[in-house]
Amino acid sequence: MTLMHREIMEQPEVLGRLYEKNEAVLRALVEELNARGVTKAVFAGRGTSDNAAVFAQYALGVYRGVVSALALPSSMSAYGARLSLRDCLAAGFSQSGRATDALLVLEEAALQGAPTLAVTNDAASPMAKAAKYHLCCFAGEEKSVAATKTFTAQIYLAASLAALWGENRELQAALRRVPEQLAAFLAAPPDSLPRLAERFRYADDGFVLSRGFNYPVALECALKLNETCYMKIKAYSASDFYHGSLAQLDEKTPVVVLAPRGALFGDIRALAGRVRDCGAEVNMVTDDEALVAAYPGGVLLPHTGHEATSVFIFAAFAQLFAERLSVSRGLNPDEPRNLKKVTLTL
Amino acid sequence: MTLMHREIMEQPEVLGRLYEKNEAVLRALVEELNARGVTKAVFAGRGTSDNAAVFAQYALGVYRGVVSALALPSSMSAYGARLSLRDCLAAGFSQSGRATDALLVLEEAALQGAPTLAVTNDAASPMAKAAKYHLCCFAGEEKSVAATKTFTAQIYLAASLAALWGENRELQAALRRVPEQLAAFLAAPPDSLPRLAERFRYADDGFVLSRGFNYPVALECALKLNETCYMKIKAYSASDFYHGSLAQLDEKTPVVVLAPRGALFGDIRALAGRVRDCGAEVNMVTDDEALVAAYPGGVLLPHTGHEATSVFIFAAFAQLFAERLSVSRGLNPDEPRNLKKVTLTL
Repeated sequence: MTLMHREIMEQPEVLGRLYEKNEAVLRALVEELNARGVTKAVFAGRGTSDNAAVFAQYALGVYRGVVSALALPSSMSAYGARLSLRDCLAAGFSQSGRATDALLVLEEAALQGAPTLAVTNDAASPMAKAAKYHLCCFAGEEKSVAATKTFTAQIYLAASLAALWGENRELQAALRRVPEQLAAFLAAPPDSLPRLAERFRYADDGFVLSRGFNYPVALECALKLNETCYMKIKAYSASDFYHGSLAQLDEKTPVVVLAPRGALFGDIRALAGRVRDCGAEVNMVTDDEALVAAYPGGVLLPHTGHEATSVFIFAAFAQLFAERLSVSRGLNPDEPRNLKKVTLTL
Repeated sequence: MTLMHREIMEQPEVLGRLYEKNEAVLRALVEELNARGVTKAVFAGRGTSDNAAVFAQYALGVYRGVVSALALPSSMSAYGARLSLRDCLAAGFSQSGRATDALLVLEEAALQGAPTLAVTNDAASPMAKAAKYHLCCFAGEEKSVAATKTFTAQIYLAASLAALWGENRELQAALRRVPEQLAAFLAAPPDSLPRLAERFRYADDGFVLSRGFNYPVALECALKLNETCYMKIKAYSASDFYHGSLAQLDEKTPVVVLAPRGALFGDIRALAGRVRDCGAEVNMVTDDEALVAAYPGGVLLPHTGHEATSVFIFAAFAQLFAERLSVSRGLNPDEPRNLKKVTLTL
């Protein structure tokens, strides 16, 4: 068994008591944010942690009306910009807690008196120490170069913050159900998943499309396939794919569509139809039975009952898909070429 | 001559008196932003206009310390989020001024009393009418599906706003020199440019890498190659490319590196070296003589004397490169498959 596979399987346990373990910090953070009337946020992260930050943008936007920017660290580190971070929540995402550029954003924000948050897997890390609040992933050591369990832990913490800050009991209840739902999914992934991996054995490139809460999962799916399978596959938000990008499509290009039930279901379904009309094949991944029936060879995922928690099942699908495909290609997903586990970008 | 080529060549004239034509609006906008103490912004745009918005993020961040978010319109349109836009500059970018989702952001911002700005090519468009301030590209009708002159006009206006708001006379002076510099470049593009296009005749995929001010130009370069040449080429910020994405690299993959002199020159040069060490070929595009000499087959661009205005030369390079490559492939860059000129995304 690969390290990546082992770490994928650990996720239900990691998420199991993650809220309880971080509840005191979450409550203190929300209290300060409310007391200060914060409605803006700045997020910093790279790679998988950047994808988690994009999820946090959706979650805090939808459930609390927070407008959040992804930090451009080079504007500070290289151009010497004095970004005005006051009145913002400044949050850094990093597995190791050692991301140099995210640390820089936290330090500058602290100097300006902004509330700072680190979301990492290491309570002793520089980012955890630099931030006033630290949400810990408690994921144990992550050995696989391809991040899996820290990604789902990061987005679970982001969703928990959104639910608590937004006082959304429905989302809170939905999040409690996730560990069990994820355990059931991982114990018996659909037969169509290994079959899909077989079909991609010789695929060099392609697209992963989704929108809304699952757009960051599409980004993460593409990144896992980039790093473990060396596929030059690219993620798009369905809304962006219409703008110029659609011209790249031809009948040889595999397209993976992540179509969760929910507010954007009709929109994503419409794009899938358009892609098929362009002559490309849609590999449909959905939690909707009727939709999967319309796309032969698709994958039916279990429905979590809430669009914002569907991301955990879709993310686990993406991880399993990449891991299986990597192994079937004779590669080692734990040791991708050209990469190291921790990357320090200034 | 293609429409795209004609519109590329029109750019010096479009930019020529763009500041003067918009100066009154720019001054009034800056006066209101200063009076209200605005330090945050939200930008909305799709495709090429989204790339212009990313440039605006760098320009306003570096020259005025403004933290700006790219709007997630679906959080409002699909999920019904009540984003807190007060105290933000809300700006929509769109060639036609008819981008449905950007319009939605402007309308919501206006309801909340936020200062609103539209940057479009049509003063009679819905976005121009919805926003309190309208910066007009005055680019004439843009007929080519692949946007060119409106992109450089949008980023010229964004840079002009940053220079005025940030009271940066050096940047203001540098911007005045751009039309002439661009005219000289377009009148005599380097011989190495058509040669580079020849080399890419059969390339299917690849990467465009840059960082900082030219990162949005890398995005735009990739988008032009996507839509006019059907190349599945992908842009990365140099700093992001290290995170997982580097595993995609092999010796068959062409890489274009945009390396302007300036604050991030050493960083981009280091990445190019790393890419070469991974066995991939670097097609170097730079305004630095010593660097181009180190990469055979590279393109030397004229130096504008200011990193923030190098983007106009690098953008024009990208446009010419895509147009030539498209024609040499027997395609029509004015009529990319699968696309229409105006896309209305909700």
